[in-house]
Amino acid sequence: MARITLYGDCSSGNCLKTRWVADHLGVDYEWREVDVWSGYTRTEEFLAINPAGQVPCMVREDGRVLAQSNAILLYLAQGSDLIPADPFDHAKMMEWMFWEQYSHEPAIAVRRAQKKFMKVPEEDIDPMLMQKGRRALGVMEMQLMAREFLVGETMTLADVALVAYTRVAHEGGFDLEDFPAVRAWIHRVERELGIDPAIQDAMELA
Amino acid sequence: MARITLYGDCSSGNCLKTRWVADHLGVDYEWREVDVWSGYTRTEEFLAINPAGQVPCMVREDGRVLAQSNAILLYLAQGSDLIPADPFDHAKMMEWMFWEQYSHEPAIAVRRAQKKFMKVPEEDIDPMLMQKGRRALGVMEMQLMAREFLVGETMTLADVALVAYTRVAHEGGFDLEDFPAVRAWIHRVERELGIDPAIQDAMELA
Repeated sequence: MARITLYGDCSSGNCLKTRWVADHLGVDYEWREVDVWSGYTRTEEFLAINPAGQVPCMVREDGRVLAQSNAILLYLAQGSDLIPADPFDHAKMMEWMFWEQYSHEPAIAVRRAQKKFMKVPEEDIDPMLMQKGRRALGVMEMQLMAREFLVGETMTLADVALVAYTRVAHEGGFDLEDFPAVRAWIHRVERELGIDPAIQDAMELA
Repeated sequence: MARITLYGDCSSGNCLKTRWVADHLGVDYEWREVDVWSGYTRTEEFLAINPAGQVPCMVREDGRVLAQSNAILLYLAQGSDLIPADPFDHAKMMEWMFWEQYSHEPAIAVRRAQKKFMKVPEEDIDPMLMQKGRRALGVMEMQLMAREFLVGETMTLADVALVAYTRVAHEGGFDLEDFPAVRAWIHRVERELGIDPAIQDAMELA
């Protein structure tokens, strides 16, 4: 794969996941840090790179641009063992990745952004975000109670996509104590990716 | 591919798109109509099939279940010309499919559901839905002004995924007169899929 440039904000799980996969697979890339809160993604300079004004985005040496975090993951990981060879496992990985963007991120990442970055007072946050986010964490807990990873026997892009905001869900006010299988899985995926733990876990540290 | 069962509600674009692809590719399947407004998807009978309580869902002969409309499309269309062979075109198709579920469906399909099925009065609908939906239609208009299809030279799953709710956007109060390239593309994709036109177009009928 020709050298690529990844534009992203390291406070964004959607951006970080592209970097983790690139690092994990030894992809030759340059990281350009973009502060999404600075307004830079709305400047002419950035819109010339990505007219959608979003990060993450990936630029190839030939100038072609790819957006959408999970589309970037799939592009970077093609042919690697982060994508199951079995067609049905592959389909289940896709199911989790679409579910992440539709049912998980819009609650868990959005509540975290409002609380941590936009400093919205707790009472002004839409109560549906907590309800929807806890339901999403419950779905993951059910799946992970008897399994190490979301699909198959090893880490796939589904785990990477979902760990990105799950590991910082507490910053959005979600209490992960209620989801022990999810907590254990977060540590497992972080170890696989070689990234620092985002949450302390007394049992794990003991 | 072994015979499959598709559960879906024909008033839902997310469900219809799985059926269109199955028909287009000559997949051997049985359709089970599920009325999402009847509460059936929350019954024990249905939850035994899909614990997520959602349609569309696909059940294989071996009982394995796949959810998420776009994951089902990708599974059904594997190896067909609805999925580009070129790796970057493939990645762009994925970009549009993730964008559909994150930036298009939550505005355009949600506003349509509120207006058409839930009969929410116009003044009680969140004004952000119109703003976000028009922005999404604008992004598509820009892309389609100089192209026949969203990615490459022929219809891909990106077109199928996006046409599903775009063709009925007027039922959500969106005026497609402002998006002529999108209108022309709707007719084009409907013709390719062999489905009845959802909107009348004087110019096209002349």
